[in-house]
Amino acid sequence: MVHTDLSGVYPFIGEDELNQIWLPKAGLAHKRLEEESEMDDGYAGWLRLPEQLCGNALDQIHETADCIGRDSDVLLVIGIGGSYLGARAVIELLCLENCKKKKTEVFFAGTSLSGRHFGKIRNYLKDRDFSINIISKSGTTTEPSIAFRLFYRLLKERYGASAAKRVYATTDANAGILRNLSAANGFTTFEIPRNIGGRYSVLTAAGLLPIAAAGIDIDALIKGAGRAQSCFSEKSHENPAWKYAAARQALYAGGKKIEVLSAWSPEYRYLGEWWKQLFGESEGKDFKGIFPAYLEMTADLHSMGQYVQQGERSLMETFLWLDAGCESTVIPYVEDDIDGLNYLAGKNLDYINRSALDGTKAAHISGGVPCVELKAETLSAGSLGALLYFFQISCAISGYISGVYPFNQPGVEAYKQNMFKLLGKRRNNHKV
Amino acid sequence: MVHTDLSGVYPFIGEDELNQIWLPKAGLAHKRLEEESEMDDGYAGWLRLPEQLCGNALDQIHETADCIGRDSDVLLVIGIGGSYLGARAVIELLCLENCKKKKTEVFFAGTSLSGRHFGKIRNYLKDRDFSINIISKSGTTTEPSIAFRLFYRLLKERYGASAAKRVYATTDANAGILRNLSAANGFTTFEIPRNIGGRYSVLTAAGLLPIAAAGIDIDALIKGAGRAQSCFSEKSHENPAWKYAAARQALYAGGKKIEVLSAWSPEYRYLGEWWKQLFGESEGKDFKGIFPAYLEMTADLHSMGQYVQQGERSLMETFLWLDAGCESTVIPYVEDDIDGLNYLAGKNLDYINRSALDGTKAAHISGGVPCVELKAETLSAGSLGALLYFFQISCAISGYISGVYPFNQPGVEAYKQNMFKLLGKRRNNHKV
Repeated sequence: MVHTDLSGVYPFIGEDELNQIWLPKAGLAHKRLEEESEMDDGYAGWLRLPEQLCGNALDQIHETADCIGRDSDVLLVIGIGGSYLGARAVIELLCLENCKKKKTEVFFAGTSLSGRHFGKIRNYLKDRDFSINIISKSGTTTEPSIAFRLFYRLLKERYGASAAKRVYATTDANAGILRNLSAANGFTTFEIPRNIGGRYSVLTAAGLLPIAAAGIDIDALIKGAGRAQSCFSEKSHENPAWKYAAARQALYAGGKKIEVLSAWSPEYRYLGEWWKQLFGESEGKDFKGIFPAYLEMTADLHSMGQYVQQGERSLMETFLWLDAGCESTVIPYVEDDIDGLNYLAGKNLDYINRSALDGTKAAHISGGVPCVELKAETLSAGSLGALLYFFQISCAISGYISGVYPFNQPGVEAYKQNMFKLLGKRRNNHKV
Repeated sequence: MVHTDLSGVYPFIGEDELNQIWLPKAGLAHKRLEEESEMDDGYAGWLRLPEQLCGNALDQIHETADCIGRDSDVLLVIGIGGSYLGARAVIELLCLENCKKKKTEVFFAGTSLSGRHFGKIRNYLKDRDFSINIISKSGTTTEPSIAFRLFYRLLKERYGASAAKRVYATTDANAGILRNLSAANGFTTFEIPRNIGGRYSVLTAAGLLPIAAAGIDIDALIKGAGRAQSCFSEKSHENPAWKYAAARQALYAGGKKIEVLSAWSPEYRYLGEWWKQLFGESEGKDFKGIFPAYLEMTADLHSMGQYVQQGERSLMETFLWLDAGCESTVIPYVEDDIDGLNYLAGKNLDYINRSALDGTKAAHISGGVPCVELKAETLSAGSLGALLYFFQISCAISGYISGVYPFNQPGVEAYKQNMFKLLGKRRNNHKV
């Protein structure tokens, strides 16, 4: 399970202050979250989702993933924001060696309006059999809608009348343009529950179908999330989600306006992107919110490291560490030792990596950066399921502590209105 | 050439204030920069580098790139921070279609201590002929040193006695461990001038050899930088580099503590990473500095967009726009128009992308975010050379305005001392 180590925060916010002020706030926030999840028109359906996903709930996803595996080299996932980041985070982290078997390659589109980028994907599909999973709750988001119109045309050119059988649409259960489009064309559909927003949707079909198609064990992922659900529902000052949420908000109140999440292998990049959306979109409103940034370690020690050590003292840092498992690349002994590395001979890379983390954490704390450390279990589908759930519940609690409603995103409409005007979209067009 | 549009800044910092206070500061800073470049022990050798790179200066790089192209599928570039970000930025941006001919694939290593990540690269090299370009000014940085020890062993296993002929070492001209290692083994060497630091080194052999090996026209790149050198050396309030530097520092003084750079196609990612190092490491010291963050548009409108529109009003934004050139993906007309996109039929993607930029910029300005727009010429090796030079000179001027020395990075040693202690490195080992 996930462990929240606050020893690197106590030099900045005393344990007493956390216990007496901020952890009780986390308790109240947790209560509000549970109330939200019980409301008919609430948006916390994800809170009890893992326990609901037992038995046959996943049969359709398993069957579809198998079918895609049989007829496609590539599953083109078309979605943006919460409609792709969760799946991409899990796939990039686990597809190195944790896939049961190599199935379909999952490729992401619909995240850009760049013609060059579109051309690159079209080129990639040239010699590959593919299917499409279009993911959009409303069906009206511009980027995926455009990408779908373009790639569905390609699919029809390639497969003629059977193209529609290669389209899987994940959308709202009852309404919306994508549901109409699916009905008109006979696409297979999957539902995103009404009470779960995009950034909390990784354990719905929005995340699970691409993840399963990539060959990852979604049953293990959900089992991990289920363990997390029971663990983090505990009403206790020891609840790791309470501790993370309370520490963040205490530090924010003390002037730490930016949180950098440091992860220790390049494969964590999209987990970082997912985390940035989760926290940034949940908390960044009403002219407040911690600004989330991601550091890829140890690469970024050699780019952003200088700033973190000695720049404005408005940073907090969250170290994320999962043991990598069985990998053991050992540094060889070299007779001449011109490079001076023989002091590391016989040690394995991950041990050195962990020492870099420990050295960095101590340096940043000395430099005035409060540091949280999140330790999860050894990387696997199960530990990752637990970690995703941990971040979701921590984020909701943290948002409620700060006084915002963590499930809306009222600011994302502003640019769309301007853009539609520039593009000449008439008001009597479809709802956006 | 690069054009700096400050119309989105004036609602926040008046044109008069910029002209009377901040642009004169930029002028003084520019003078200090030129003094630095004339000092024997200075670190602004990059300022006049483009004009020095004419004639035969690049012959060795061209010949080596050709040689690598003949005997290697992959050039493994081992370097971290400024020793890889410039090359990677240029290659990821231009290698889609701007390469004269497809030469060697350039693959980057030495940026991580993760065993899993190392295993992934080793696996990739399994069936491919490869050479190594190790890039390190001192030769003592831990990550690339370890990667080189590991991959050089692999190279020797593969090629025996001729392995050393496949190693190209880019390092300090006179001293350092990597120079010793090269002398002992007979590696071909390239020089990084003493008066140019890592993050300003993209137009030295550190950047140029990998870029040339990837098949990019480095003569055009340097020619573009040369045009930029003469353009941005102008002492004028109209100098686009002065304007960018002055606007940043004026906004920072007014409480805008975070700068987000928005670029409009996924291929800009490593330009964003390079920019973050350049500005973050140059300015982030003495407990001050603008925190640099990168947004990949339009993807990040659907993740970080909410925060930028309505979060803490401590942001400034810099929009970077380069026309993509000849790409023209046109939105097709569809009879039923269920997706409601026919209002875009006949328009090309890049036009829609540009409209998204315009709509976003207007929305962010209304929302309280001052916006700079940098418009460069149509994407090519030449326009990119100019842009890189523009950022370098803007960054140095901006740093001097803020009162820091923009060419050192005193904070990066702190974590290393802790790490070496944890790893049991003795003090009488080689200098770190």
